[in-house]
Amino acid sequence: MRTISATHDLAQPLPLDGGQSLEDVRIAYETYGTLNERGDNAILICHATTGDQHVATPHPITGKPGWWSRTVGPGLPIDTDRFYVICPNVLGSCMGTTGPSSLAPDGQPYGMRFPVITIRDMVRAHVALLKALGVERLYAVIGGSMGGMQALSLAVNWPDMADRVLVLAATAAMPVQNIAFQELGRQAIMADPDWQGGAYYGTGRSPDAGLAVARMAAHITYLSEASLSEKFGRRLQDRQAKSFGFGADYQVESYLRYQGESFTGRFDANSYLYITKAMSYFDLTEGLVGDNRPSDEDHRARLAEVFRGVTSRFCLVSFDTDWLYPTSESRVIAHALNAAGAPVSFMELAAPFGHDSFLLDVPALDRVIEGFLLR
Amino acid sequence: MRTISATHDLAQPLPLDGGQSLEDVRIAYETYGTLNERGDNAILICHATTGDQHVATPHPITGKPGWWSRTVGPGLPIDTDRFYVICPNVLGSCMGTTGPSSLAPDGQPYGMRFPVITIRDMVRAHVALLKALGVERLYAVIGGSMGGMQALSLAVNWPDMADRVLVLAATAAMPVQNIAFQELGRQAIMADPDWQGGAYYGTGRSPDAGLAVARMAAHITYLSEASLSEKFGRRLQDRQAKSFGFGADYQVESYLRYQGESFTGRFDANSYLYITKAMSYFDLTEGLVGDNRPSDEDHRARLAEVFRGVTSRFCLVSFDTDWLYPTSESRVIAHALNAAGAPVSFMELAAPFGHDSFLLDVPALDRVIEGFLLR
Repeated sequence: MRTISATHDLAQPLPLDGGQSLEDVRIAYETYGTLNERGDNAILICHATTGDQHVATPHPITGKPGWWSRTVGPGLPIDTDRFYVICPNVLGSCMGTTGPSSLAPDGQPYGMRFPVITIRDMVRAHVALLKALGVERLYAVIGGSMGGMQALSLAVNWPDMADRVLVLAATAAMPVQNIAFQELGRQAIMADPDWQGGAYYGTGRSPDAGLAVARMAAHITYLSEASLSEKFGRRLQDRQAKSFGFGADYQVESYLRYQGESFTGRFDANSYLYITKAMSYFDLTEGLVGDNRPSDEDHRARLAEVFRGVTSRFCLVSFDTDWLYPTSESRVIAHALNAAGAPVSFMELAAPFGHDSFLLDVPALDRVIEGFLLR
Repeated sequence: MRTISATHDLAQPLPLDGGQSLEDVRIAYETYGTLNERGDNAILICHATTGDQHVATPHPITGKPGWWSRTVGPGLPIDTDRFYVICPNVLGSCMGTTGPSSLAPDGQPYGMRFPVITIRDMVRAHVALLKALGVERLYAVIGGSMGGMQALSLAVNWPDMADRVLVLAATAAMPVQNIAFQELGRQAIMADPDWQGGAYYGTGRSPDAGLAVARMAAHITYLSEASLSEKFGRRLQDRQAKSFGFGADYQVESYLRYQGESFTGRFDANSYLYITKAMSYFDLTEGLVGDNRPSDEDHRARLAEVFRGVTSRFCLVSFDTDWLYPTSESRVIAHALNAAGAPVSFMELAAPFGHDSFLLDVPALDRVIEGFLLR
């Protein structure tokens, strides 16, 4: 598989939804496979919150296999013998694309001087990259979770860009409970004195404790009670009886601590703030209706209006144990697409892994992806 | 209504499940109404995690009405004209009963020298108080959430103590997802440098930031997505458009910040550590089967065994929007009680408020309580 890991510097400042524009934007990305002569075999993969461009190559810090290496590769559901796959690191992240840890024009890291961005801003950067790579129209755009939001945003805001849109475990507008969890994570980071107002770069201190707590909270929401019960139950960690202390008694406690701590070694706390803020802001109808959404019913009608101009075919997948972006969220999208007369297929798949199901071994998902990309 | 707010000092050291015993235990409590001559009209109310003895009197710090003043009082579902109601502050708390902020025999606050306690230890203190108040047998023990766990523990471990056991929105063994959320809260507190290993008393600093984050996390779990949508939706806070900053854009963010901050003014962070630890440890079968629970099926069989010696009538209530202690948890208890031949009625009530439903305006709950206490 021909794999390229590269960066691209945008020639023009990137306009942002917040009204500012961002100079000297660099986009780190990977490509797999080759763009064919007709230029019609390109697939854009959009990664999730703390994901990155290393879809099918080892992570440079952890050394672990790429996050979707079970799905993307020669002969796999997203077949790199057939498709030219592009995955950019999102704007605001910390794996090579410009974000709060990058240097501002004054030579100092942005920190909290980095502008607040939106999901649409991330997609605007993706589109600029696609143009630079000679991709005028995508065979498909694919994403799970925050990646699914980007896919939806691309379909709606750049309606001539994608033939197919595959959205996994996502939503058309961030549910309020998720806004609450994301706010909790941001508060944990900003409460850490080592955060230092975001200006921690080069100080030798960083808000690892706060970031670990934020990650723990998010991690709980990614799993189902069923998967936690199956994986850990109330089993004790390396002991036969309760410790009657504040160490990790239960396996789930030890696991969460590990998840929190290991995350701080590979992710920037400010990036976590900016990316979760973009997610909290996400509402596909926002340009149309202003920010103060009046009612669910009105929102659904407006979502159908938003989809009226799309030219893509859609495929939506939810998972029955996903309580973070439950099936009801995908159903809202499916109804709105139907109301707008757009072709859409929608499936709830059974999988025990909660929200993380889109990343894990779910054979039915492989078949859905293969089928949707067939023709 | 005759109301007494008092403290009682235990004459004997209190033995604890962890093997230690605790000297000089003080129990703060309130009573409402009068114990009748036959001594058979006493009801013990057990409070939840961050509750207190102020069931129907204003909270001494916040000035807010007692947490169950809509349920306990003359002519109310728990009628103080008829019943003698006792509510002790639990062991390990911070409202007058001995806990980590109390002075140890050396004259210094316990801090983390306070022993790790269990739900059964809390109940052991309750029973000692009841004896001191001349109550040999209870008309009923009643509790919601952690209060329900205490009620179950009393019924199982002091089987001659209560005629009736009313358990609201509780569980027979802490579900693993809740252990995870509780560990998250503890990690948030212990990550705060102002926690100082728990020895923050008198230093002028306390882990308010960490405690606020812990409270925010817990608060999210108390509410349902439906109640959050109803209450806040994606409505913005005091503004017409997004701020593109890190202030509280959405009402739910502002609400959570307020909940976190106001909590630190009325609750001790170490008490939060000890009480959540006791909850994480909670498993009614633990004495019988050791700590490493093998399977759900075995656990159910053992739970039935645990209930074999009970003499009480039981009433269990769950709420359809409670995802913290969902109906399935109450069903496990009901099945085990049935298997043990114990009289039990079990209802799932419809209420939109999530786990908090047991504290709020749910008329069907009032009728259940009245009916169960009728005779």
